[in-house]
Amino acid sequence: MDWQLAASKKKSSLEAAIPPEWRIKPPTYDSVMSFPRQSGILTEEELQITESSATQLVGDLAAGKLSSVAVTTAFCKRAALAHQVTNCFHEFFPDMALARAQYLDDYMAEHKKPIGPLHGLPISLKDQVRIKGLETTMGYATWIGKKNTEDSVLTTLLLNAGAVLYVKTSVPQALMVGETINNVFGRTTNPRNKNLSCGGSSGGEGAILALRGSVLGVGTDIGGSIRIPAAFNLLYGLRPSHGRIPYANMANSMEGQETIHSVCGPLAHSVADMRLFVTSVLSQEPWLHDSKVIPMPWRQSEEDTIKIKIGSGGLTLGYYFCDGNVLPHPPILRAIQTVTTKLSEAGHTVLPWGPYEHPSAIDLFMSIIGADGGTVIQNIADLTPATHSKLSINDLWDLHLRKWNYQCAYLSKIREFEKRIGRELDAIIAPVAPHAAIRHNQFKYYGYTTIVNLLDFTSVVVPVTVADRGVDVRNEVKSLSEVDAVVQGEYDPDVYHGAPVAVQIIGRRLTEERVMAIAEEVGRLLG
Amino acid sequence: MDWQLAASKKKSSLEAAIPPEWRIKPPTYDSVMSFPRQSGILTEEELQITESSATQLVGDLAAGKLSSVAVTTAFCKRAALAHQVTNCFHEFFPDMALARAQYLDDYMAEHKKPIGPLHGLPISLKDQVRIKGLETTMGYATWIGKKNTEDSVLTTLLLNAGAVLYVKTSVPQALMVGETINNVFGRTTNPRNKNLSCGGSSGGEGAILALRGSVLGVGTDIGGSIRIPAAFNLLYGLRPSHGRIPYANMANSMEGQETIHSVCGPLAHSVADMRLFVTSVLSQEPWLHDSKVIPMPWRQSEEDTIKIKIGSGGLTLGYYFCDGNVLPHPPILRAIQTVTTKLSEAGHTVLPWGPYEHPSAIDLFMSIIGADGGTVIQNIADLTPATHSKLSINDLWDLHLRKWNYQCAYLSKIREFEKRIGRELDAIIAPVAPHAAIRHNQFKYYGYTTIVNLLDFTSVVVPVTVADRGVDVRNEVKSLSEVDAVVQGEYDPDVYHGAPVAVQIIGRRLTEERVMAIAEEVGRLLG
Repeated sequence: MDWQLAASKKKSSLEAAIPPEWRIKPPTYDSVMSFPRQSGILTEEELQITESSATQLVGDLAAGKLSSVAVTTAFCKRAALAHQVTNCFHEFFPDMALARAQYLDDYMAEHKKPIGPLHGLPISLKDQVRIKGLETTMGYATWIGKKNTEDSVLTTLLLNAGAVLYVKTSVPQALMVGETINNVFGRTTNPRNKNLSCGGSSGGEGAILALRGSVLGVGTDIGGSIRIPAAFNLLYGLRPSHGRIPYANMANSMEGQETIHSVCGPLAHSVADMRLFVTSVLSQEPWLHDSKVIPMPWRQSEEDTIKIKIGSGGLTLGYYFCDGNVLPHPPILRAIQTVTTKLSEAGHTVLPWGPYEHPSAIDLFMSIIGADGGTVIQNIADLTPATHSKLSINDLWDLHLRKWNYQCAYLSKIREFEKRIGRELDAIIAPVAPHAAIRHNQFKYYGYTTIVNLLDFTSVVVPVTVADRGVDVRNEVKSLSEVDAVVQGEYDPDVYHGAPVAVQIIGRRLTEERVMAIAEEVGRLLG
Repeated sequence: MDWQLAASKKKSSLEAAIPPEWRIKPPTYDSVMSFPRQSGILTEEELQITESSATQLVGDLAAGKLSSVAVTTAFCKRAALAHQVTNCFHEFFPDMALARAQYLDDYMAEHKKPIGPLHGLPISLKDQVRIKGLETTMGYATWIGKKNTEDSVLTTLLLNAGAVLYVKTSVPQALMVGETINNVFGRTTNPRNKNLSCGGSSGGEGAILALRGSVLGVGTDIGGSIRIPAAFNLLYGLRPSHGRIPYANMANSMEGQETIHSVCGPLAHSVADMRLFVTSVLSQEPWLHDSKVIPMPWRQSEEDTIKIKIGSGGLTLGYYFCDGNVLPHPPILRAIQTVTTKLSEAGHTVLPWGPYEHPSAIDLFMSIIGADGGTVIQNIADLTPATHSKLSINDLWDLHLRKWNYQCAYLSKIREFEKRIGRELDAIIAPVAPHAAIRHNQFKYYGYTTIVNLLDFTSVVVPVTVADRGVDVRNEVKSLSEVDAVVQGEYDPDVYHGAPVAVQIIGRRLTEERVMAIAEEVGRLLG
């Protein structure tokens, strides 16, 4: 069977998974944000459920105020709408989800207590997470029809914690881009403006969460793939450091590549909901299942350290507008300014941070990611053999050393900075991308996210604002680099008017508790 | 300059570093264990100092009962003797050490408090650790004369904690063997029997500690290099999991190889002394200096969990005699039996553990370690180009996946075991090598140590006994494999009579606090 036919059949079977009563005629206008409410498909209770927080929902589920069947039905319906207006599904399995929800409701009725901290809560998964019996195509036509024989470790632990799984969301082919389009399912669009990208590679998560077809989603990030869709959809997103959240037995596009690890993390509407995800997963002791997970339970004392500082206006934060390679567009510069001003006004210390040799670090990242000359991806996609040059093992070991040296030098810069200012640097505020949610096919520069992956630092995306043609006038500066000229050329105040804008809060390696607490405070200050 | 001449000059300058008044005529008999006491070089106080524990010494130094100059002088003298009878030095710098000791004594006099938890204590270092201004040849003639321009991170942190550095000890060329011989310095011998190996690759540490020319030493371990010399010299040795103790800016023989990380850890005469090392290093927050170190301070609660179990006879330990590849010699089988019997008698639960697919795992380890076909090592040693086959990047990524899958499968076996017995498995007792301290050039099988490196588990070596020709009669069994036949053929009750024998206590990844506490209890039960 040729791949176009296989893709077309796959797509048809996906559409058939949506019950007829949930089908709609897609609107033609650019922003579909209010469509779920206007469609008439959801009841008032279903609208309320889907517009609640995950934290609220697990509380109501555990208290027996809501049934998992009701919650699951609501999210399945709203997700079906989200898909029909943004094309964010790869797999949709409401029947399986509702059977699971019924099981959990029965459990609750019998035992009078929840099965775990996520009891009854629907969670959406990027289409890298395996569920036994379902497919994980990642948009590769060649993977259609290959049913998973086992769950990913994360799947097992989410189920143990009580979650309901109902959908797997779209990714770009080969994953490594900040937009979402593949040969099987086509393009996923941004629900705020269909001319803009939903981001990538966890783009389906960005779109479904923005439309509240999901309240808590799982993405992965090797170069920005959680943070970019979070930023492009005004969501929170956590890129934990490697070794915190299990990744074992997930599909990936360069399996076995361990120089820069892809990591798994949540996208959500609030830090509280992300924290629910992280604490729930850690409560399942993932290190007993996945050898790459560090035995590090949730450290409440780390969060408390930050909360105490917040209480006394005692945070110390660095920030930068520009990494020396590409100057961000005006809406991004304004977002950094907004955040630093709010923090200063709240009494916190905010100081400029000189990004340490980012341009050469970004080159290093690219050399690492391209180490195999694209062989794996081309083999999966059944393309002609790799033509890019492959590195030797010894070349790769040289890159490993350069990476380690760079990471240690960065730590050294932080220590020097702290010594100079006489206090601990709690985090760094930085752009997520040099632009707001981007026009399709225009994502050219990933340095703002990849630097975090190279350092394996922890980063949390905080939504800030939307681009505003009345305020965000073009930068009038000399180009920093060739790619800077291209990126600057892309900015158009009219095109980007209304496009989501975010910042990221970056902490040292394995500082999830602290960075989430800081992000929560930034969110609170932004209102 | 040809390498023989360079090596000979280097060796002469090393010998010249020993003050004339500490020089002796080396004895000709096989065991030199009692030589330091008999030599007449050390005073009674110096003998007492060098036969104290590190824990006792730091207590006396912090209380001002001993000066660092006195302690450092004693260890320098005894180390000089140890070198002259076993050839365990690569670098010896008593003048620098005594100047440092004087600085610390002055600090103490002025501030009335120690500078850190290791205040004034001499620590010996394997010749991979860099000290600014000194050489790190690792026994490579081509590295002679290259002075270190920076300290290793561990050096900095040990100095910050108050340690005195005075010696760098011998290693085998290229590090990756269980004996210690190189072209620059020759062979290091076992002080209990010069016909036996001191082990390797941290072999100089094994010899110097056995003779109490050091009380606390630093080794590294990628395939057994801490555990083997510990076992061959009746010492304790800790192979921590990767990411606990800093390794940044140390020399190594396959730098940048990260599939199986070499790790750094202590060799000592007791668990208490190893714990002093680990807690002292962690107190310096190494994760702020070395990006590969996990921000995981000493976890007293983990140790306490084990101590509570010990108090109630509640440990649960697995054990195995044989890994399915090579049956250990009779003294090793007896050591395992001795330990399990002692533990049972103390009321602990001891159960046979079926090692999970060790033979294929050992093959995997060998494929990983040989991935570059020996290119790096041959380049350093200035040999003809590598003739072994090199893997491609994609082959290496396949090995990464196999490693991860194996690690996760091992965790799964442990979970199943725990489910079956209805309690937590605290650790596994296993041989360190299939033989006691080996005759020179006879080390053939590393599977008992390398399996731990492949899994990145934590392991502590506990000395048990010595081989006894009256008890340890030859195994009479069919060979398990080709290498087993060779190993069995090596056993000779007369040759190995008196050779040190140890076991290792193995825990899951990053369980240093727990495994050390179990090892301490095993040591206590052995008396």
